[in-house]
Amino acid sequence: MESSPEALAEKRKADKLRKQEEKAKKEQEKAARQAQREAAQTAKLSQVISAPELTTCDLHDHKWGNLFIQSNARTSRAWCRACDLVPQLKGEKLWIRGRLATSRKQGKTLCFVQLRQSMYTVQAVVSAKEGELVAFAAAIPRESVIDVYGEVSVPETPIASCTQQLVELQVEQLFCISRSTPELPLQLEDAARTDEELLADPELTRVNQDVRLNNRVIDLRTPANQAIFRLQSAVCELFRGFLSSQGFTEIHSPKLVGTASEGGADVFRVEYFGGAAYLAQSPQLYKQMALMADLDRVFEVGPVFRAENSYTHRHMTEFTGLDMEMTFLEHYSEVLDMLDRTFNAVFDGLNQRFRTELDIVRTQHPFEDLRYKCPCLRFTYSEAMALLRTHGPTKLAEELAAATDLALRAKLQERIDSVRVHADDEDIGTEDEKLLGSIVADKYEQDFYIIDKFPASVRPFYTMPDPLNPTFSNSYDIFIRGEEVTSGAQRIHDPDMLLKQAAAKDPPVDLTPIQAYVDSFKYGAFPHAGGGVGLERVVMLFLGLPNIRKTSLFPRDPKRLSP
Amino acid sequence: MESSPEALAEKRKADKLRKQEEKAKKEQEKAARQAQREAAQTAKLSQVISAPELTTCDLHDHKWGNLFIQSNARTSRAWCRACDLVPQLKGEKLWIRGRLATSRKQGKTLCFVQLRQSMYTVQAVVSAKEGELVAFAAAIPRESVIDVYGEVSVPETPIASCTQQLVELQVEQLFCISRSTPELPLQLEDAARTDEELLADPELTRVNQDVRLNNRVIDLRTPANQAIFRLQSAVCELFRGFLSSQGFTEIHSPKLVGTASEGGADVFRVEYFGGAAYLAQSPQLYKQMALMADLDRVFEVGPVFRAENSYTHRHMTEFTGLDMEMTFLEHYSEVLDMLDRTFNAVFDGLNQRFRTELDIVRTQHPFEDLRYKCPCLRFTYSEAMALLRTHGPTKLAEELAAATDLALRAKLQERIDSVRVHADDEDIGTEDEKLLGSIVADKYEQDFYIIDKFPASVRPFYTMPDPLNPTFSNSYDIFIRGEEVTSGAQRIHDPDMLLKQAAAKDPPVDLTPIQAYVDSFKYGAFPHAGGGVGLERVVMLFLGLPNIRKTSLFPRDPKRLSP
Repeated sequence: MESSPEALAEKRKADKLRKQEEKAKKEQEKAARQAQREAAQTAKLSQVISAPELTTCDLHDHKWGNLFIQSNARTSRAWCRACDLVPQLKGEKLWIRGRLATSRKQGKTLCFVQLRQSMYTVQAVVSAKEGELVAFAAAIPRESVIDVYGEVSVPETPIASCTQQLVELQVEQLFCISRSTPELPLQLEDAARTDEELLADPELTRVNQDVRLNNRVIDLRTPANQAIFRLQSAVCELFRGFLSSQGFTEIHSPKLVGTASEGGADVFRVEYFGGAAYLAQSPQLYKQMALMADLDRVFEVGPVFRAENSYTHRHMTEFTGLDMEMTFLEHYSEVLDMLDRTFNAVFDGLNQRFRTELDIVRTQHPFEDLRYKCPCLRFTYSEAMALLRTHGPTKLAEELAAATDLALRAKLQERIDSVRVHADDEDIGTEDEKLLGSIVADKYEQDFYIIDKFPASVRPFYTMPDPLNPTFSNSYDIFIRGEEVTSGAQRIHDPDMLLKQAAAKDPPVDLTPIQAYVDSFKYGAFPHAGGGVGLERVVMLFLGLPNIRKTSLFPRDPKRLSP
Repeated sequence: MESSPEALAEKRKADKLRKQEEKAKKEQEKAARQAQREAAQTAKLSQVISAPELTTCDLHDHKWGNLFIQSNARTSRAWCRACDLVPQLKGEKLWIRGRLATSRKQGKTLCFVQLRQSMYTVQAVVSAKEGELVAFAAAIPRESVIDVYGEVSVPETPIASCTQQLVELQVEQLFCISRSTPELPLQLEDAARTDEELLADPELTRVNQDVRLNNRVIDLRTPANQAIFRLQSAVCELFRGFLSSQGFTEIHSPKLVGTASEGGADVFRVEYFGGAAYLAQSPQLYKQMALMADLDRVFEVGPVFRAENSYTHRHMTEFTGLDMEMTFLEHYSEVLDMLDRTFNAVFDGLNQRFRTELDIVRTQHPFEDLRYKCPCLRFTYSEAMALLRTHGPTKLAEELAAATDLALRAKLQERIDSVRVHADDEDIGTEDEKLLGSIVADKYEQDFYIIDKFPASVRPFYTMPDPLNPTFSNSYDIFIRGEEVTSGAQRIHDPDMLLKQAAAKDPPVDLTPIQAYVDSFKYGAFPHAGGGVGLERVVMLFLGLPNIRKTSLFPRDPKRLSP
C-alpha cells in the first residue's frame, strides 16, 4: 500500500522527532553516566578524606590510610634511607619514610610522588588497578610525612628531578603519617632558587629574609639550608676534635655573671631573685681563670650575648662562640700557631669530608673555594696598613671610575683620601678591612690570613703590650675573605701590670667589680693567650654567604626573639 | 829573784784580768764574726729579694732570677712535661715549667722543690756551691710558677711524695715566672684531704664548700678537682662522639627567647632593648623544631637556666644540658635504646680511657665503680612503684631500727606507712627515688636503670599519652645511683592533639605564646622523642660525689653569682 504525500510528510516529521528524542535521550544518558562517574569520583574523594585511621597494629589489614604513630607496636619491617637507595637494591622491597615533596597524577591509575629525606629525593611510582591507592596518594598535600613500601626498580632513563636518579620505588603501600596543611606560608621551590634564576625571571617569587625567618622551620628544609647546618655542626666537631688532640680540656663557664664584666655598655641585665645578674659577653675572664686553675689548655663552645643595638649583615645579639685559651712557654706565637692549625684543620675537614654538603650549598649559593694554607699568611698591623695605603687608593679609584651616583662618588673620593694617609697605629673600619681583604686576595691569592700586633689603644685592658713598642700589643685578628672571625691576644698575667693598664685606659677601667679575676693572677700565674671565634661568621665566610642570619638556626637581633 | 806574796797576789790578779779581757775579746770577736755572718746572710737575702728581673732575651747570662714572659723571644730550649718524666730519660737535660708546690731547705746548699703540673708532681733538687740558687729557690712562695732546668736522675729510693717517683731533676737553672703572694686563702693540702683523714684527726683544717667556691681558682688545683674537670670534659666528648657516629647533627638553639616557654614560674627575665626576653629553660622546643626542619637527629650541649629559688645538693640556677632529640619510625623505644647506648658509651669510655683520672678522684673521694649494662635494667613506672611498696618498708624499717632521734624515728615511720601504699600512678619524691635506687642496687646489683611509662599527670603537656592507658605516658627517666639524670619522652607531633592536651592540663597551658612551636607541626611532622641529660649530675653520680657544686667549674645558685 502506497502512502499519501501527507502521510509521508507526517512520517518524516515523526522520524525526525523520534531521532531528536533518541538523541536527547542518548545525551541525557551520557550526561547521566557522566554525572554517575563524577559522583563516583566525588564518592572516591570523600572516601579519601575519610581514609582509615590506623595504628601500627592495623598495618597487616591495610595498604593505605592515615597512620598515627603513638608507639603502639614495633614491627620487623625493613626500612631504608633515601641516600642509600642505589641500583644494586633492584628487586628489594623496602619501607621508607619521608616528605611528599611533589605529586603528579596521570590518569586514574598512576601518580608520581617525589619523596624527600633532608637533602635527598627519590621517585615513588604509585599505580594500582582499583585506583584507590592512587587517589589517596594524589590527595596528600605537599610536605606531609608519608611511609612508602615498594620494590626498588631501575628506570630506563635517569630521573633528572631527583637526587637518586638511577632508582625508583614501585609503591605497593602508602600511609600518611602526618598531613600538612595544604597552604604553606612559603614554597620550598621559591626558597631554594638562586639569585641568578631570580634575576633572569622577574615573575618568580623571591622569598625575603623576614618571611624565611618567620617560617624558619619550613625555610630550613631547603637543600642548601640542610647542608649549611650540617656544615655548621661539622665546624664545631672539627674545632673540638683538633683541640682535643692537642691536649685541650672542654669547659663550661657560667653565662650568668654578677657584674657587667668587660665594659658595661653592651651587656644584658637579668632579674636574679630580686637582684641583678648579667649575661656573659664572652667566656674571656673565665677561660683565663680556668688556666690559672691549672687546666692548662681549655676550649668552650657556647652562647655569647651582646646587647648591641645594631643591624648589620654580621652582628647578632646571641651567637655561638668557639673559644680557646692556653698557656704558652716563651712566646704567644705558640698560641697563634695553634689557632692557625685549628682553622686549617677545620677547612681541611670540611673540604675532605663534606664535599656533598658544600656542593649542595653551591647549587643555590655559588662560591669560590677558600684559598688558605698552613701556616697562613701573616702581617703585622703596620704591614697591613702599609698595604692599605699603597694599594687601597688604586682599588678604590677603579670603583670610582665605575660609579655614576654622585653621593657614592663623593664617598669613594673621601675614602681614597683617608686610606692614602692611614697611619700605622690608626684603627681600621670594616669597609677598609674588606678592602684590605681584596688587596690580599689579589696580591697573594689567599682568603685566610692573620694580622698581628694591633695598636694597644684599640684592644681591651687585659691585652699584653708589645715589649718593644708599647703603642702596639701582643694581639691579633684572624680574617676570612676580608672579615674578622677571631680576635685574640696574649693576656696580662701579672696582677700589678693589669691594674696599671686598666688605670691607664681612657677612660680608666674599674677592676673592683671583677676582683676575683684580678686575684686569680696573684697565686702564681701562667703566661697565656687565646682567641674567640664566631661560629656563624666562620660558616658564613667559608661559604661566601651574604648574611649571618643564613648560618644561625634561629637568629637573634634587637628586633627578633622568635621563633 | 823571788817575788813577795803581795807581788804574787798582784800578778795573779793581773793574770785573771788579762784572761778575762782575752775572753771578752774572743767573745767580742766571735760576736763580730757572727754579726758579720748574719750581715752576709741578710745581704744574701736582700739580694734574693732584688733578684735580677729578666726577659727571655737575658737567659744566657743568668742561672736564676725573675723572668717576665712578655713574648720577647723564642728559644730552642728542650721542654718537658711532668707526666712524661720517666727513668728512660736519665742523663737528659730538660726544661720544665710548673708550680712550686713545696720547698724544703736543708742547710745552705740544698733545697728540695716539689714541682706540680696539674695532677703530676716531680722532685727537683737544688744544690749549688755558692748557695745563691738555693737561697733564691727556697725564698719562692708556694704556688708560684717556676721554670727549672736540670738533668734527669734516678734516685736510689723512689720519691714517695711525688707522682713521678722514679726520677728527679738535678737543678742547674731556676727562674721564677710568676710569684704567688705568700699567704693563700686556703692550703691545697687541706683542700685535698679525704673525709677519713679529717674524721681521724680533728686538728686538721677542713675547707668548707663556701671557702672553696670563693677561692675556686685555688680549690680547682687539687688533684681530685683536676681529674673531675677532665672527666667532665670527657663525658661531653663521649656523648657527642657516640651521637655523631649515629648520624646526629649538633645544633645551637637560642637561649634568649621571646616568651616564658615551658611554664613561666622558673624562668629568668632579661631586659631586651626596652622590652623583655627570657632565658631558655631548656632547648626542648627548639630541638623539636629542628627535627620538623628535617635535621632528623640533633643534639645540643649548652647552658640551661632555671630560676628555682632552692638550695639542694643537686640543683643549680645554671647547668650544662646534654640534650638529644630524634625522629623514630615505629616506637619511641628506638630512642630509649639510643639513650641507653649513649650512656653505656660514656661509661665505657670513662672506664677505659680515663682510669688515671678516676683513680685520682678516688684517692680523695672513694667510690664504688658504677654497675651498668647494655641494654640497661628497665622498669615501667608501675613495676618500680610495686618494688617500692614491696621492699621499701623493710629497708626503711632497718633504718628505723638503727635510729635513736625521735623526730627521725617519727619521720621514718611516716615514710614506711606511705611507701606501703604508694599507688602505681602516684608521683614519687626524691627521697623515695633514692630508696628505690637502693632497692634496685640490692636486688639487681645495678646502679643504672630506666623507668618508663610515667604517669601523664606528672609530665609536660607535650608528652605523648600511652596509647593503651592514658593515665600513663610514653615518657621515661634515667637514673644513676637512685638519682634522676635524664628526663625524656615521645613528644606529641600532632598539632590538634597538642592543643587538646595543653587545654586538658590542670591548670590549662596557654599555647598562644609559643604559636611558632605549635605551627611547626602543621606542615608535616615526624614522630619523635628525646631526652635531656644534666652533665654535672652525671659526673657527680658516676663519681659518687655528694654535691653538684663539686662538678661545676663556677657553680651558680640563688646566692652565688661569683666568681
